[in-house]
Amino acid sequence: MKFLTLENGQLGAVVGETAVDLVAAAAEQNVDLAADTLLGLIEAGDAATEAAWALAEKAAADNIASRPYADVTPLAPIPVPTRNILCLGKNYQEHANEVAKKMKTSSDKPPVPIIFTKAVTSVIGPEASFPAYEELTSKLDYEAEVGLIIGKTGTNIAPEDAWDYVYGYTAINDVSARDLQKSHFQWFRAKSLDGFCPMGPVVVHRSIMPEPKDIRVKCFVNGEERQNDTFDKLIFDVPAMISKMSAGMTLSAGDIIATGTPAGVGMGFTPSKYLKSGDEVVVDVTGVGPLRNFVK
Amino acid sequence: MKFLTLENGQLGAVVGETAVDLVAAAAEQNVDLAADTLLGLIEAGDAATEAAWALAEKAAADNIASRPYADVTPLAPIPVPTRNILCLGKNYQEHANEVAKKMKTSSDKPPVPIIFTKAVTSVIGPEASFPAYEELTSKLDYEAEVGLIIGKTGTNIAPEDAWDYVYGYTAINDVSARDLQKSHFQWFRAKSLDGFCPMGPVVVHRSIMPEPKDIRVKCFVNGEERQNDTFDKLIFDVPAMISKMSAGMTLSAGDIIATGTPAGVGMGFTPSKYLKSGDEVVVDVTGVGPLRNFVK
Repeated sequence: MKFLTLENGQLGAVVGETAVDLVAAAAEQNVDLAADTLLGLIEAGDAATEAAWALAEKAAADNIASRPYADVTPLAPIPVPTRNILCLGKNYQEHANEVAKKMKTSSDKPPVPIIFTKAVTSVIGPEASFPAYEELTSKLDYEAEVGLIIGKTGTNIAPEDAWDYVYGYTAINDVSARDLQKSHFQWFRAKSLDGFCPMGPVVVHRSIMPEPKDIRVKCFVNGEERQNDTFDKLIFDVPAMISKMSAGMTLSAGDIIATGTPAGVGMGFTPSKYLKSGDEVVVDVTGVGPLRNFVK
Repeated sequence: MKFLTLENGQLGAVVGETAVDLVAAAAEQNVDLAADTLLGLIEAGDAATEAAWALAEKAAADNIASRPYADVTPLAPIPVPTRNILCLGKNYQEHANEVAKKMKTSSDKPPVPIIFTKAVTSVIGPEASFPAYEELTSKLDYEAEVGLIIGKTGTNIAPEDAWDYVYGYTAINDVSARDLQKSHFQWFRAKSLDGFCPMGPVVVHRSIMPEPKDIRVKCFVNGEERQNDTFDKLIFDVPAMISKMSAGMTLSAGDIIATGTPAGVGMGFTPSKYLKSGDEVVVDVTGVGPLRNFVK
């Protein structure tokens, strides 16, 4: 089950190579759809998702409200999240090492997850451009990450129950201004400029995703591979992060977690490989597909 | 002009000692109200606010949909913000000093604002209780702050235009778990447990607030005064914080900024004076009135 947000902001699905406009398909088939948006579908629960997918499969088979997925430029799956994007810092050991080497700080495994947020207003979709912000930063960097979408609301979630709270997966580029990250001490601002959270192109339901060891997250800048690692290398894996984040802090359906970036960010190279105006950045997560954006 | 969110979640106003249910008053007077909620009113712009206030004054004078303000237990002015609460760290020099002394770190004036966020789910209203979270923290602390509500959306706001973007004022308690603040490195989690953002009781429109030097923010724990300073002592004042925060990052109508806490937090005392179950905490901001909460 793969869902997306169409150009008009409404709910769509991807069946094989076909994109289905679910709102149009529901109208044409005269069936109820639990929600007009992907966020609404997530909030509506598992049965609503199953019903929407059944409609998508039928519509694609009958060529109703359907067109080639290749012709769609989706918006971010949740273009306006209801709260800031939750992010984990230094959640791959090799990335923690590359940062420590550059910053001359400790590369010790964090004893607890480092959690920060990105502003709602930083979200953009596939193919969109984000500014180079040359007046604000000279150290613009990328971070390819697996994005998790929370599917139901909970607090104090036990590790063994954590997967039940995961709706699905997307790809996120946690764009970061390294100089602001250092000067502002807290990372929020360096991670939250308008356009700094490319996301998409689709949300893949957890039921069809492979095991973490077989989920690969990659980043390419102008076609050059910079990051490539698997989702089983997380320091705090999905059960650990969800149980620790939700301890005393409610996670809500529709919340988005950027789970951390592997080694290979621009600041980790010698000399550094920061982004500049005109660059193409692609984040590719197994099953989700390439999320391409440009620096303008 | 003072507005609040009534027990039913709808828009109200405070005229002298009288609280007006604006939705009920509008229905009874057969007049249009721009919005049913305070967030909606803020988003609707200045003319909507003026019209709502005119209705409030008429209703209070005619005793329509009115009752004593003392009988109301408002919700937080914006019970469910559309994005995380924006917060400034170490924005009073004396507070920066007390923290530096305890943490054995630098008390230098931050060169740029330290900005972090509190989760939307941490918001509670006046008279509500927040848990002591004894299983998670042994260093539960208060921070009395002036809360600013942004009234219109903007990016790259010039310092001289900043006040035009302020809708009004409220009081915020930036409740903080000091041990989590240290161990998690980024402050988000330590500041975001459920209930850690008491807010209210009202929003006072900027048009009737005194000059910053005459706005006093105080904190009392079990009746003992712990914090007491004025709003002109901020390291980054309102024009500075709004211009610097909005550089490249859009501020939206309805955004909430916790502007920083003065000296006198629990960790600043020797020995420390942390909160415990059963404590009463009152944050009092000039014009806004006391915001009382309890530790359960």
